[in-house]
Amino acid sequence: VGAGAIGGFYGGKLAQAGAHVSTVVRSDYQVVVSQGFRITSSLGDFTFRPERVLRSAAEADYRPDFILVATKVLPQVSTADLIRPAVGEGTTIVLIQNGIEIESSVAEAFPNNELISGLAFIAVSRSGPGRIHHQDFGRLTIGVYPTGTSDRARLLKGLLESVGVSCEITPDIAAARWEKLLWNAPFNPISVLAGAVDTREILSNEAATALVRKVMEDVCAIAASTGHELPESIIERYIENTAAMKPYKTSMLRDYEAKRPLEVEAMLGNAIRIAARTDVHVPHLQTLYALLKLSDEKNRSAGTPG
Amino acid sequence: VGAGAIGGFYGGKLAQAGAHVSTVVRSDYQVVVSQGFRITSSLGDFTFRPERVLRSAAEADYRPDFILVATKVLPQVSTADLIRPAVGEGTTIVLIQNGIEIESSVAEAFPNNELISGLAFIAVSRSGPGRIHHQDFGRLTIGVYPTGTSDRARLLKGLLESVGVSCEITPDIAAARWEKLLWNAPFNPISVLAGAVDTREILSNEAATALVRKVMEDVCAIAASTGHELPESIIERYIENTAAMKPYKTSMLRDYEAKRPLEVEAMLGNAIRIAARTDVHVPHLQTLYALLKLSDEKNRSAGTPG
Repeated sequence: VGAGAIGGFYGGKLAQAGAHVSTVVRSDYQVVVSQGFRITSSLGDFTFRPERVLRSAAEADYRPDFILVATKVLPQVSTADLIRPAVGEGTTIVLIQNGIEIESSVAEAFPNNELISGLAFIAVSRSGPGRIHHQDFGRLTIGVYPTGTSDRARLLKGLLESVGVSCEITPDIAAARWEKLLWNAPFNPISVLAGAVDTREILSNEAATALVRKVMEDVCAIAASTGHELPESIIERYIENTAAMKPYKTSMLRDYEAKRPLEVEAMLGNAIRIAARTDVHVPHLQTLYALLKLSDEKNRSAGTPG
Repeated sequence: VGAGAIGGFYGGKLAQAGAHVSTVVRSDYQVVVSQGFRITSSLGDFTFRPERVLRSAAEADYRPDFILVATKVLPQVSTADLIRPAVGEGTTIVLIQNGIEIESSVAEAFPNNELISGLAFIAVSRSGPGRIHHQDFGRLTIGVYPTGTSDRARLLKGLLESVGVSCEITPDIAAARWEKLLWNAPFNPISVLAGAVDTREILSNEAATALVRKVMEDVCAIAASTGHELPESIIERYIENTAAMKPYKTSMLRDYEAKRPLEVEAMLGNAIRIAARTDVHVPHLQTLYALLKLSDEKNRSAGTPG
């Protein structure tokens, strides 16, 4: 569900591994029906022809073993509503989405279904209708929500690894989400707010690099307040690794430039609300959040200032 | 010196009052020589034909009573170097510029000259070559640097008020600079960083309005640490007044859109350096500063992210 770049890529790899994969596609429906997804990838180019192409989960006349959700997490979209018509008794729900505390509403809506929560470490983008370009990386980190692992998680891992996609199972997916937010919380907002900059431009600027550290410290403080102490060395390691990789344009910047809504709430808003509950002061993160809220609102309205 | 919108307007009004006003103009030199400044103004339209039009202060073969400086305050421009050739024994230097602690380098360079520091509360912009549009307001607040008043300050006030421009003399111009920064520090950066928003758009967004308050609190804390306690009610009053005025596009946003350098250091950098000296924690201001440094750098470079 939500077969954009991420959903199309992992769906395609699972199909390659022998799974029966159908997709729910909206915008590229016609082209996917007629020619499938054409995927250029560092793991080898391939075409992914879904078993069935649906416009919505309501069109599914069967109950799948897995429903993979790879939509953006936005306040105006209810993941539970999106998948409800297709969720059966034995369906495992797999969320491949960014953000913090994004699982709770789905877990509440389907208390008897297994819920696997996943994070994609991948550089992949939609390069045209039905076209996906997988630039780099691809690791999926998954865990059963709220904690633990399962046979279904191991099955997913096995399928993905059989076609060259690395997949890691963690017993503590919440910790993994904080670690990923540690990168996303500074780089995604800064890339948008500073006027379309890539990771290299951010880390070439002294003041901006200092800000990256401060925002990461804010995130570490919130994570620690929820019992997830991140390793001390992680901030410098993340900065060094980012400086070493080729300049990367964040997904939030891509969304901003395409005038798509930004995942401000899932990434920053939820973290800030947790900070308020646990009484942690996160002024740098708060400032990015406020600017991004305004920026997102402005970006999707037609007007320009007078 | 620096006869842009501000310099051209006040210079023109002083000429109207009977002063002999010459101007140093660079970009619009030819048009100003041939037809002067054409100024549309809520105080009445007028044409300002400077006594002499110079390309630089070095062309002045006399030593004026006053040198008004209305340039932007940028790290790469030394105000002292700019005016040095024209500064005589009896010359009073008048700075009409934004920012904090912008006077010290000029005071050090000309220790025997009177230095008047001024702030313009005016909505005025260059509407074309040699053309200035005075939209609203116009009050000048001046004071002798570092404190006090003088006959020359009173003379300036008298001239301006004789042609309808209100001019206020303050014995504590540093306090007035902190008060002006209180407005500039949130609204100027936010207008740029959130993707070209005006004052109304900022104050229509709840998160952004909360940020305005936080940045103002940071500025109040720095001002207080230097002995300038701002009145408690000032933050709410500034926000209410700004909400009540018609939507305003900040000068920093205009500069950004014209790809001109931003006064990041004069406005935010100097304030943050004072905060570091007085050990005041200003994380919201610091975040705006870092984003603006990067934004300004990016805006003036040719490249776009890959």
